Amino acid sequence: MANITKKVSWSSRGDESGGGERTPLLNGSEEVRYTRQLSGDGGMFHIGRLSTVDLEEDMTSDEDAGCPKEIPHNEKLLSLKYESLDYDNSENQLFLEEERRMSFLGFKCLEISRWVICGLIGFLTGLIACCIDIAVENLAGVKYFVVKQNIEKFTEVGGLSISLILWAVLNAAFVMVGAVIVAFFEPGAAGSGIPQIKCYLNGVKIPRVVRLKTLVVKVCGVICSVAGGLAVGKEGPMIHSGAVVAAGVSQGRSTSLKKDFKIFEYFRRDTEKRDFVSAGAAAGVSAAFGAPVGGVLFSLEEGASFWNQMLTWRIKPGDLSSPGLINFGRFESDSVAYNLYEIPLFIVMGAAGGLLGALFNILNYWLTIFRIRYVHRPCLQVMEAMLVAAVTATVSFAMIYFSNDCQPLGPDQSEDYPLQLFCADGEYNSMATAFFNTPERSVRSLFHNPPGSYNPLTLSLFTLTYFFLACWTYGLTVSAGVFIPSLLIGAAWGRLFGILLASITPDGSIWADPGKYALIGAAAQLGGIVRMTLSLTVIMVEATGNVTYGLPIMLVLLTAKIVGDYFVEGLYDIHIKLQSVPFLHLEAPATSHWLTAREVMSAPVTCFNRIEKVGTIVDVLSNTSTNHNGFPVVVPVAASDDMGKVCGLILRSQLIVLLKHKVFVELARSRLTQRKLQLKDFRDAYPRFPPIQSIHVSQDERECMMDLTEFMNPTPYTVPQETSLPRVFKLFRALGLRHLVVVDGENRVVGLVTRKDLARYHLGKHGLEEMQLAQT
Amino acid sequence: MANITKKVSWSSRGDESGGGERTPLLNGSEEVRYTRQLSGDGGMFHIGRLSTVDLEEDMTSDEDAGCPKEIPHNEKLLSLKYESLDYDNSENQLFLEEERRMSFLGFKCLEISRWVICGLIGFLTGLIACCIDIAVENLAGVKYFVVKQNIEKFTEVGGLSISLILWAVLNAAFVMVGAVIVAFFEPGAAGSGIPQIKCYLNGVKIPRVVRLKTLVVKVCGVICSVAGGLAVGKEGPMIHSGAVVAAGVSQGRSTSLKKDFKIFEYFRRDTEKRDFVSAGAAAGVSAAFGAPVGGVLFSLEEGASFWNQMLTWRIKPGDLSSPGLINFGRFESDSVAYNLYEIPLFIVMGAAGGLLGALFNILNYWLTIFRIRYVHRPCLQVMEAMLVAAVTATVSFAMIYFSNDCQPLGPDQSEDYPLQLFCADGEYNSMATAFFNTPERSVRSLFHNPPGSYNPLTLSLFTLTYFFLACWTYGLTVSAGVFIPSLLIGAAWGRLFGILLASITPDGSIWADPGKYALIGAAAQLGGIVRMTLSLTVIMVEATGNVTYGLPIMLVLLTAKIVGDYFVEGLYDIHIKLQSVPFLHLEAPATSHWLTAREVMSAPVTCFNRIEKVGTIVDVLSNTSTNHNGFPVVVPVAASDDMGKVCGLILRSQLIVLLKHKVFVELARSRLTQRKLQLKDFRDAYPRFPPIQSIHVSQDERECMMDLTEFMNPTPYTVPQETSLPRVFKLFRALGLRHLVVVDGENRVVGLVTRKDLARYHLGKHGLEEMQLAQT
Repeated sequence: MANITKKVSWSSRGDESGGGERTPLLNGSEEVRYTRQLSGDGGMFHIGRLSTVDLEEDMTSDEDAGCPKEIPHNEKLLSLKYESLDYDNSENQLFLEEERRMSFLGFKCLEISRWVICGLIGFLTGLIACCIDIAVENLAGVKYFVVKQNIEKFTEVGGLSISLILWAVLNAAFVMVGAVIVAFFEPGAAGSGIPQIKCYLNGVKIPRVVRLKTLVVKVCGVICSVAGGLAVGKEGPMIHSGAVVAAGVSQGRSTSLKKDFKIFEYFRRDTEKRDFVSAGAAAGVSAAFGAPVGGVLFSLEEGASFWNQMLTWRIKPGDLSSPGLINFGRFESDSVAYNLYEIPLFIVMGAAGGLLGALFNILNYWLTIFRIRYVHRPCLQVMEAMLVAAVTATVSFAMIYFSNDCQPLGPDQSEDYPLQLFCADGEYNSMATAFFNTPERSVRSLFHNPPGSYNPLTLSLFTLTYFFLACWTYGLTVSAGVFIPSLLIGAAWGRLFGILLASITPDGSIWADPGKYALIGAAAQLGGIVRMTLSLTVIMVEATGNVTYGLPIMLVLLTAKIVGDYFVEGLYDIHIKLQSVPFLHLEAPATSHWLTAREVMSAPVTCFNRIEKVGTIVDVLSNTSTNHNGFPVVVPVAASDDMGKVCGLILRSQLIVLLKHKVFVELARSRLTQRKLQLKDFRDAYPRFPPIQSIHVSQDERECMMDLTEFMNPTPYTVPQETSLPRVFKLFRALGLRHLVVVDGENRVVGLVTRKDLARYHLGKHGLEEMQLAQT
Repeated sequence: MANITKKVSWSSRGDESGGGERTPLLNGSEEVRYTRQLSGDGGMFHIGRLSTVDLEEDMTSDEDAGCPKEIPHNEKLLSLKYESLDYDNSENQLFLEEERRMSFLGFKCLEISRWVICGLIGFLTGLIACCIDIAVENLAGVKYFVVKQNIEKFTEVGGLSISLILWAVLNAAFVMVGAVIVAFFEPGAAGSGIPQIKCYLNGVKIPRVVRLKTLVVKVCGVICSVAGGLAVGKEGPMIHSGAVVAAGVSQGRSTSLKKDFKIFEYFRRDTEKRDFVSAGAAAGVSAAFGAPVGGVLFSLEEGASFWNQMLTWRIKPGDLSSPGLINFGRFESDSVAYNLYEIPLFIVMGAAGGLLGALFNILNYWLTIFRIRYVHRPCLQVMEAMLVAAVTATVSFAMIYFSNDCQPLGPDQSEDYPLQLFCADGEYNSMATAFFNTPERSVRSLFHNPPGSYNPLTLSLFTLTYFFLACWTYGLTVSAGVFIPSLLIGAAWGRLFGILLASITPDGSIWADPGKYALIGAAAQLGGIVRMTLSLTVIMVEATGNVTYGLPIMLVLLTAKIVGDYFVEGLYDIHIKLQSVPFLHLEAPATSHWLTAREVMSAPVTCFNRIEKVGTIVDVLSNTSTNHNGFPVVVPVAASDDMGKVCGLILRSQLIVLLKHKVFVELARSRLTQRKLQLKDFRDAYPRFPPIQSIHVSQDERECMMDLTEFMNPTPYTVPQETSLPRVFKLFRALGLRHLVVVDGENRVVGLVTRKDLARYHLGKHGLEEMQLAQT
């Protein structure tokens, strides 16, 4: 009890702040720039630290997300806004006692509930995907019917501009609804959702990303934007939906609905939830593309960070419910064999896809920067979305109007929505088909329509316009994915390539099936934009129902990735960077061996004693300028007075629960009345722990002491100060840590490494670069 | 320099021994048994420690493998024979200096060489696979020709027993050659090689597993055993070959050939080599099945342990060279669609596959135990292999002789090796087809021959005999895989099932295509035996060239795995266990939370000082009774005299190199003449570091000192004593550690956790069990 009165003497520093030695940087927009000359031929590294100050009141509650108060200006910035998830279990006494009490049978039961949950996730995800699909088809059908009637009315008599206006207004109205609900109710539902899920699985707590409200807005939003004729797909949102469903089902309750089913309580922690979210994303892919294996791989490749191998086969039963909504039609094996001499052609197409993908990404990058700077008010965002919808309609209409690519209406009626326009009876306008259909149907037509269905001019015009439309559309404040538009662009230029090839080679028309080249082009374009390889190969194979193209598709995706990576990152990574998310990649930057834990850590650190005064804890937690989330617990060293030996680690969330339940030791009455807290109390509060402001602590209580021994993690991972950055990185990444304590030879706390300290370093064009930290 | 004279006072304990507190156990075959009563309802755990003593002279050199001197009796034993690999880089000063000197461009070059190596691996693996294939086909062709002529000669005139003898002798001769080279020259080449590669990737150093000699013996051995008509496949050996090729190519030299190309020196360490071996195994699968994606997945699922994500797409170009040697023929999409009501049937087949697989594994387990006990002399092993070959020939012959299942010889000549026997002209004996063909061809026939090609009796007899033959064959001292035999058994009973189904249902003949059921049966049987799921699905899909069956195959494999796991482990895992390999599974046993580092670690530990006397080091390394491989380096604590604070970790291999190069500080002349050692010196010695006995240290030199500072890893991972076993396990497994130092609150060394300390605990039928350690 001698420790009790010891005052914590060093100043505050914890998780999500640039405090400590960086404190001066936080006092204004000043910039400290220093260069470091390496011994040897290491060259010069410019390390700039620019910290903009805009300390927000309290960011622990994740309610206050949405529109950041200050806008990050470039990708070289790392936001301090994002918290991390605890992917390393806090193995405190309570937890260990529970695990030790649990019998062998108990673990078996847990295993079975995991299966049940995965089954539920698969079923519900499939259901939601079906709903989206049916709603989109029906709305598109109604729209087609109305517009077609109108066009037919005016084709002969002139005055098609009225049709144009009707079309544009209809589209804009759909999109407006979609944009309004996203912009005003749940900004987290914007975009495809894949970058957000990727961050979540990486360990970044993106606010509100797995909420029920997000799910509802996402589903309604994607229906509106697809029905509104935007150049978007519905696959990304389906994947996001799967993840939300998983997060909800696995917790056995909904905080939004205030309903607790009192089941699956064991899974109420970040580690377990993460595994289910991975499974949910896989179920989403599975439902969207009918690609169960691809789904699992997708989670592996994109979720990258952590993969519980057990999941691999737990996900699968969930996939049963997936009818495979998107089906690109089956390639019949006979007609589509490829020759060995076509492989170089495929590789050329892959390179083209990489180039076009890089162009797409760069344009979208500039556009997104523009949007972040100028279009960040909800009403502006809605207006932009409507503008895009109207422009899309107008451009499409113009293209259709001026094209005279008439095709005979086949007896098999392969087009659901043919438009006759100025064509002869029994013919339809093929440009109209390309534009008027939902993108999925257009992709299917490009893959499977017989040679001659499209003329080259139509295709090149279509590619050009659709490329820019899709690029403009991605990043709008609507719920929409980029998979299908990418495929469509690629399929269009791929088919064009195939047609040209057939015309310039003597026997080209025999082997150069345009549908085949459309498929390769689609893969190349998608690979160039999103830069996935393995999972995408399997998804494409599963979606087209043909294995023949496995190898070419893989080659094409690989080429596209290499070529694209030379210029710019993948689209999702760009958007993650632009959100200034502290995303940890697979490995530390190659040239970072000269950095050690001492240099990257934040110091000094706010520590607590094993038995700490309640007032001290409340003061530290209430300090809005630091807002730490993890605190080493120390035992003071007898001899010296400055640093304590680390003996544990406690989280802000745990302290909050302790304070809320008033787990105090009242020394005045000299008896221990510390209330016995259960693991259940922590689980009930998870994941939305109340902010410290909402907890009232009286003056008397402030004088009490709190015994942290039982609740802290007694065995936090530690590293010596001399540990190199790649080594720290590997430990941090492999174990999914949130805080890593840096100690000296005596086991005394000297610093704390958090996600931001590691994410700050990244590889630029010419070597290691350090990003700036900002509060936005 | 004050530390120099400090004597290491605590007794010896290091890596691969049961020393320390377990020392008494090593002094005889005594058995210490104690029970541990848990608080709560944890129940009783019997922890038996039985240590047989048979300390071998020196086991650091991996030359002395092959036949263990004492035979492990059951799977509850853990061998101390196996060393671990260092999958955690030793980041000592030399290494860090090199990394820091390397420019950004240097890293780019490394990246390119990685690609080049992967390309070479793919190319060479493909080449080897082709050679195997061509050799097998030619030998089988010759054998068929000879036997056929002979049979035709005797069919009419009687005296077929001469044909039988000819056949049996031919087969036995082939097998004898295969068995002799394996048993006498390279026992490591026995079996499929997949368990060995699995262990290698897990971090266990299986002696001689990636040697050139192993490759040569493996390739010749598999050709002989397949040509010898054994019930074996050549896929496992191809995978093993890929891994050996990878290990060789990536090192840029061959120790066996004493040829050093002086290239790729950077990759001469366990971490890099492991990544390439993964890639090689993937290339092997790719070459064997023509399944590039499946190959990558295979490495993921089986290599389980570590997966460098970058590999995923680095492997692929290598796959280009794979022509897909095994091709089960393409299922045409039209004929093979399945109905939803067939799904339950598939699941039933999956369950049957799981049961039959479990039966196979249990029988093989007993057989292997028998072999370990009684058939461990090379000549006995060769004789057993020849016996199996002769029996296989006899049984096949008997079956063919007594069967009268004549089928018309189709115009398309789908059988390459038809045997007429007693059939009418223009007909062939279908039983003979099933037995006489190479297994791959038989599988193809079962999948694709039209309904009616086989009669049910033939199939059931064939299934029965082949099941037992395959079971007897696996584990023989020949180089042979189990993939194809499993597929063949499954295809046979699957086809049988299909035929029966068609006959008992009214309209069965329309939908119950026997080929389809053969495919499902093959998947079920293979899944039941090897228990892979995801990778196997993709391999099957890629090998059959049809995606339609992706979902059913996945379901069937999953069912087979669940049913099979209920009874017994997968075949590979059984063989790994029977070798007493300290294999670390993905997660710590569920009920192991009550164990802490203090209980699992080995103590006391042999430590060295930063500046240590050469004589002490030589003595410790020469101590054959302990044979440690890693030593914490400590700084003595001023006050006390018993324990030092950890400041580094040094490996036996590093010390050996230091001793070899006489990196001594000669204190007598009071000047530092320590030779500057380069990282290159360590790389040149890798991976076959000389034994300590081969290094002569004079009496004068023994009095010198050695400064370890520069060579030790200054930042070893450490954990506190209270860390729970799952937490230790996670750290150990995630980072690929070999030694984990356990420290107290003062950072003083209290113990060392090695692979064996963790692998000792495993989950039995009723909870946690502890395995015995043995020197065999």
